Amino acid sequence: MTFYDGSAPVFTHTLTALSAILTKAEAHAAANKIAPEELLNAQLHPSMYPLTRQVQLACDFSGKACARFTQTELPVMADTETTFSELLARIAKVLANIKALPPAKYEGAEKREITFPVGPGKTMTVTGQQFLNHSAMPQFFFHCTTAYDILRHKGVEIGKRDFLGAV
Amino acid sequence: MTFYDGSAPVFTHTLTALSAILTKAEAHAAANKIAPEELLNAQLHPSMYPLTRQVQLACDFSGKACARFTQTELPVMADTETTFSELLARIAKVLANIKALPPAKYEGAEKREITFPVGPGKTMTVTGQQFLNHSAMPQFFFHCTTAYDILRHKGVEIGKRDFLGAV
Repeated sequence: MTFYDGSAPVFTHTLTALSAILTKAEAHAAANKIAPEELLNAQLHPSMYPLTRQVQLACDFSGKACARFTQTELPVMADTETTFSELLARIAKVLANIKALPPAKYEGAEKREITFPVGPGKTMTVTGQQFLNHSAMPQFFFHCTTAYDILRHKGVEIGKRDFLGAV
Repeated sequence: MTFYDGSAPVFTHTLTALSAILTKAEAHAAANKIAPEELLNAQLHPSMYPLTRQVQLACDFSGKACARFTQTELPVMADTETTFSELLARIAKVLANIKALPPAKYEGAEKREITFPVGPGKTMTVTGQQFLNHSAMPQFFFHCTTAYDILRHKGVEIGKRDFLGAV
């Protein structure tokens, strides 16, 4: 097993599933004469991020993690998406970014130190393996699942099979 | 990197965090004179599983995955939990089960074929790596996150730091 095998393909698989989920959500809004913004701005609690931000964060945690593992430049995004089309384009962009990083560049990443932000003006340094296990992977799935949960909460007809994608 | 490094520690870390989240939820119910059942039976949508079932499934997807990776007996649980204490005991049990499996038993699991149920009377066979990446890991985080989302939705004072646990 390589470090690549346990990281990039996990992200690209679930990002692809998230893209299909958003496409279904957009169709649900159109079919039910719901304004897309009602879904895009939906939250599970007033103190939680809305759908749009959950998708942006799922993109960031996966795209930045792969950049850190491969010691390449961190992707910077403007976070200006306000439509389903723009969110789909963002996912397409992060998928392209991740797929452009050759597996060989992940070699040794599990042991390399990675320094990442953990709050305003604070960073943490851990090994690549710890970063994957306890930050990148949980953060990524947290935001993908919460995006899904928001849409289920709003009545969009999706199921866990959509979340799991094509195995 | 070993297959063990990318699997068991991910599960045990987030199960430990989930246990602390449930402890906070129980305290929240007591402090606000909310019947514990109101949280335990809470759902994000009438067609989604309630908190209790989300926790049971998080335990199952992690515990069974580790049993499959190590070719040991699948843990069988009765799914009879109706209180926070019983859910905490279930998490403690699956944590003990996973920690009892020596890392050496995971050797080669990434390439071994794993057959698992994917619906009534249906199974699928994939490599251990594919099973981890596209079933065990997404399923596990899906149910842990949804448990968290249900509690946030119900107003329990938890944050993503609780979900991430102690890094």
